Amino acid sequence: MSTDLPPPSYVDIEAAAQRIEGSAIRTPLLENPRVNAMLGGRLLIKAEPLQRTGSFKFRGACNFISQLGPAQRKAGVVAWSSGNHAQGVAEAARLLQTPATIVMPADAPAVKVANTRASGAEIVLYDRLKEDREAIARGLAERHGRTAIPPYDHPWIIAGQGTIGPEVLDQAQAIGATLDAIIAPCSGGGLSSGIATAVKAISPATQCFAAEPAGFDDLARSLASGTIQRNERLTGSFCDALLAPSPGNYTFALARKHLTDSLVATDEEVGAAMELAFRELKLVVEPGGAVGLACVLNGRLPINGRTVCVVCSGGNVDGAVFQSVLAAAVRRAA
Amino acid sequence: MSTDLPPPSYVDIEAAAQRIEGSAIRTPLLENPRVNAMLGGRLLIKAEPLQRTGSFKFRGACNFISQLGPAQRKAGVVAWSSGNHAQGVAEAARLLQTPATIVMPADAPAVKVANTRASGAEIVLYDRLKEDREAIARGLAERHGRTAIPPYDHPWIIAGQGTIGPEVLDQAQAIGATLDAIIAPCSGGGLSSGIATAVKAISPATQCFAAEPAGFDDLARSLASGTIQRNERLTGSFCDALLAPSPGNYTFALARKHLTDSLVATDEEVGAAMELAFRELKLVVEPGGAVGLACVLNGRLPINGRTVCVVCSGGNVDGAVFQSVLAAAVRRAA
Repeated sequence: MSTDLPPPSYVDIEAAAQRIEGSAIRTPLLENPRVNAMLGGRLLIKAEPLQRTGSFKFRGACNFISQLGPAQRKAGVVAWSSGNHAQGVAEAARLLQTPATIVMPADAPAVKVANTRASGAEIVLYDRLKEDREAIARGLAERHGRTAIPPYDHPWIIAGQGTIGPEVLDQAQAIGATLDAIIAPCSGGGLSSGIATAVKAISPATQCFAAEPAGFDDLARSLASGTIQRNERLTGSFCDALLAPSPGNYTFALARKHLTDSLVATDEEVGAAMELAFRELKLVVEPGGAVGLACVLNGRLPINGRTVCVVCSGGNVDGAVFQSVLAAAVRRAA
Repeated sequence: MSTDLPPPSYVDIEAAAQRIEGSAIRTPLLENPRVNAMLGGRLLIKAEPLQRTGSFKFRGACNFISQLGPAQRKAGVVAWSSGNHAQGVAEAARLLQTPATIVMPADAPAVKVANTRASGAEIVLYDRLKEDREAIARGLAERHGRTAIPPYDHPWIIAGQGTIGPEVLDQAQAIGATLDAIIAPCSGGGLSSGIATAVKAISPATQCFAAEPAGFDDLARSLASGTIQRNERLTGSFCDALLAPSPGNYTFALARKHLTDSLVATDEEVGAAMELAFRELKLVVEPGGAVGLACVLNGRLPINGRTVCVVCSGGNVDGAVFQSVLAAAVRRAA
């Protein structure tokens, strides 16, 4: 993904926050006394499952489409995604009265296809094994003069996701909390690099972390080696929302500059974090949305005596998957 | 339950709000664009599952214990409950450094006993079939000079639960919403009558409703007949938190004055409401906490063209029960 735009700065993120205000939900920053006691510190949970469309992805999509001119909006937008980006783009397009076409795999979960269609988007299905979704989307965009909206490696997307940063700092200040650290899930890195860009500008002493599923730790390995690394596999993680093949050019440059590290949690730890969010926080979090919480609960980012914010980034999980997470917890307890 | 105290007024509820501020969580007022579109109006969800101890019960318990003198606090408090009141009293007592004894049935869910004990309370178990828990608790209170904290029919408890009323109106005003109606789950009526007392004082045009499980509609029948009616059965509802035998004297008097009606939902409707809260709101709601939402979703309180607040009052539901709710939704969809 290449564009001629400069990487987003804190000023761009503040501008994005103003653009999406009133469309995006200012999600609550939760805190649970029992979880705090368990961890010996203060854990603030940014609850993006409560965001419009059930994940943070709406923020970037809304910021992107808001910056298109009248002719571009009239021509419409195209995106490719099997999940949260699809729903975010479709809903932002609906609100901004822009036609949207979303390229989705034919085997995408029915509920995600239905939600995307419910926002009024046209769905183009493709065969995940035989076809290249990005090529299909870019072909559609070129043929019809539509604007392609990439899932993460674009300054407007990163700035939109980054609006969580100032929002969290503002909410923390309102309850008298100063963040020692913040951690957010990472797939292509739009969320974690956007948040870190804003947080480091406002509160340089706050450490910023990404969180990845074990076996899909392309950002952790990229940061360690200093060059962009790819995941060996592109399927097979429990965290279906975190399967980008590698960090993007923009996101990796920002991550190198602003992130302390990218931490890793196993599928089993992610399931246990989802169960804790159910039992103690009463919040529904999808696997990819719970990987930061899993890192915190397993001591990879110590909370003891500190104040840490974990971004739970989405809650679009099928009932059947959620049932299996709860059943596994019962088995562990037995 | 008789005391010489007058029934709580709006002034008492405002005083309670000040007493519990900083201990109770100001839970968010959620709103979901897709649910609004489905209902054709504006539904605001007061998310008390996010309250300390996972239900609104902490509010009343905290307001009650805060009003005890030093000698009474030192002597301690006693309560009887198998669930949310137990956890609310135990946690409020811990925060206010008051010893607490909770009388719980020997067959109470292990997680509720464990949570109550985790707050430092002493647990006294009793045989649900052979013993009278209120008699045990009052005996303990008399022998040891402790203060008994009734679950609902006391002005201090009602005032504490009623703090949700001004809180919701304040949060609604902040987002430019004026409530046409508010509905809250009802067992003994502390929550619904407390909220209605406050709401009618601030916003007389807002209609106030209670919500009860079908077959346990003692308040609805009491309001219809003008005298306190009892439930025929004391067990067997899916809504385990809503099994009080009848409205209290205080709560019924306030309900007659301030409630438009008490609406009813079936167990199946409650399960479907819990599943919708999972799928669309990403919020974990227990059966008793979802009965108001079930009334709204089934058209008993029309939303079309209006703005209505539903109080989801708690989220303390076992994983196994939640699994069965999700499984039932899959069966309905098939």
